[in-house]
Amino acid sequence: MKKIMNDPQNIVPEMVAGLVQAYPQYVERLPETEALVRHDKASMENKVGVISGGGSGHEPTHAGFVGAGMLSAAVAGQVFTSPTPDQIYAAIKAADHGKGVFMVIKNYSGDVMNFDMAKDMADLDDIQVKSIVVDDDIAVENSTYTQGRRGVAGTIFMHKIIGAAADQGASLDELEALAKKVLPNIKTIAVALSGATVPEVGKPGFDLADDEIEYGVGIHGEPGYRKEKLQPSKALVTELLGRLKTEFKYQAGDHFAVLINGMGATPLMEQYVFTHDVLDQLAAEKITVDFTKVGNYMTSLDMAGISLTLFKLVDDAWLKGLQYPVDTIAWTQK
Amino acid sequence: MKKIMNDPQNIVPEMVAGLVQAYPQYVERLPETEALVRHDKASMENKVGVISGGGSGHEPTHAGFVGAGMLSAAVAGQVFTSPTPDQIYAAIKAADHGKGVFMVIKNYSGDVMNFDMAKDMADLDDIQVKSIVVDDDIAVENSTYTQGRRGVAGTIFMHKIIGAAADQGASLDELEALAKKVLPNIKTIAVALSGATVPEVGKPGFDLADDEIEYGVGIHGEPGYRKEKLQPSKALVTELLGRLKTEFKYQAGDHFAVLINGMGATPLMEQYVFTHDVLDQLAAEKITVDFTKVGNYMTSLDMAGISLTLFKLVDDAWLKGLQYPVDTIAWTQK
Repeated sequence: MKKIMNDPQNIVPEMVAGLVQAYPQYVERLPETEALVRHDKASMENKVGVISGGGSGHEPTHAGFVGAGMLSAAVAGQVFTSPTPDQIYAAIKAADHGKGVFMVIKNYSGDVMNFDMAKDMADLDDIQVKSIVVDDDIAVENSTYTQGRRGVAGTIFMHKIIGAAADQGASLDELEALAKKVLPNIKTIAVALSGATVPEVGKPGFDLADDEIEYGVGIHGEPGYRKEKLQPSKALVTELLGRLKTEFKYQAGDHFAVLINGMGATPLMEQYVFTHDVLDQLAAEKITVDFTKVGNYMTSLDMAGISLTLFKLVDDAWLKGLQYPVDTIAWTQK
Repeated sequence: MKKIMNDPQNIVPEMVAGLVQAYPQYVERLPETEALVRHDKASMENKVGVISGGGSGHEPTHAGFVGAGMLSAAVAGQVFTSPTPDQIYAAIKAADHGKGVFMVIKNYSGDVMNFDMAKDMADLDDIQVKSIVVDDDIAVENSTYTQGRRGVAGTIFMHKIIGAAADQGASLDELEALAKKVLPNIKTIAVALSGATVPEVGKPGFDLADDEIEYGVGIHGEPGYRKEKLQPSKALVTELLGRLKTEFKYQAGDHFAVLINGMGATPLMEQYVFTHDVLDQLAAEKITVDFTKVGNYMTSLDMAGISLTLFKLVDDAWLKGLQYPVDTIAWTQK
């Protein structure tokens, strides 16, 4: 293992410290936690707070999306480990301005349990909390750390849509209804070229041969559905889009947003080649793509690989939500 | 070599095509070139155009910085290879709106020669062109592809400062004077953990042992100044900051901007740990850091490593230039 770090046991607190030192205009650290709250508290007044969080190792998720128009706070757990309920509760309290707090949770057993416990703590203090559990990964049903499907890169579309609606004054009930309507329209699938190395472990979570890839790997290295020899980008796209088409049963004339997400060690050059093939194949099927984002958004430490998220834009307001102005470290596209 | 691509010979055109398909609201491709011009041409009226470019493999540099407040156009060469004079000239013509064009060039022999030839072509058409050659890398004098010092990540600070001034109506002569004043105040140094693999070559440009790093490596894998065993982040920072301090002779009370740049395969987690150590050590020396950016900005394909750029803020206007609003794919911080 070759990593730029000091003590593997202390890598998350040092990361969080560096992030806050670099971007004090965006985030503040809640005392004695790895929870970060939006710096411009004035912009949260009279609005529902929106929080998210989960294990570290997926940067810029989640702290990179804290800011006006997106998240009010984010909680970082240890690497690939859910944050504790008390830290989540600290984020809830910091994000509540009398209108309640909406939580966006990725579907992992640890996250679901700990966010639920934090909600119970909030109930005792009469803070209203509602939530959505995102399960966008279509690769496999159930998995190493999950009942049902996993929550992966598509979660960021949920952050964006819910963050925009909250900023425009939606109530807690309205956010819950919106999230439930959006959820089945976001689906993701990934391919990995290499495993991720957790600092405290020191070796990759899984191994692939020099010419081998694995379809459907999760963001913690959970198993996918097939290993095979590396294929050209066009063939990877055909495989992944084929799976998404089966799920969506999409048809000519449908409108989608697309997120092409690097897993950490995959250069933008490769991501753009893949993007070219995705958008060409969707155009050939007469799918209209109204919004595209390409880059490292939901990473898996130093994993090489890429994920493809489609978001079916059933409601015109959703595209406006994606385009709604934000001011965060990591999401900034008009 | 395991890369997401189709034909290595065609990787740059496919990348450029994907970028334009993904972000038509930012960039348009000039016909039969790998040159990209700003989509919102209205915002360039009555202003000096600002262009940059160079070999591909450093994404998001340069196309990611095309947009309001930064670059008017960018030219992508083949991987690690200068763009041709005719393509640079196409970018000059597209960026000129009667006030001339300023070129930001990284100091590599091929780039300097080809941008100069493009300027000669512009002279024949009575388009006024001036330029700056950025040579911020303090690691070595002269190098594999360079007379003098190399141009690396600090070039992005130059894009930002010149782009902001041009957007505010600075003349070509004023931009040249500003660039000359800024240039000696931007300095960079890097450390590599692994080499970069050029798609057409198929193996890394240099090898490091499993526990070895190299200080001072360039963004095309040019040799640095010392190999040694991997050190903790704090020790890396001490080494790199020590070299920068020797160059700047900085003193307590000096003001700086800091760019911490991932080389392509280095996770943000590691970049933030390194950031924490950089900002702590600068604080201990009573240096004031007014502006920090962390992320993959000037990459080297799939190289693992990090660079540290310091920009001495001698003039108050420079911080305002860094903070000046932009609207680009890759630089968006307030």
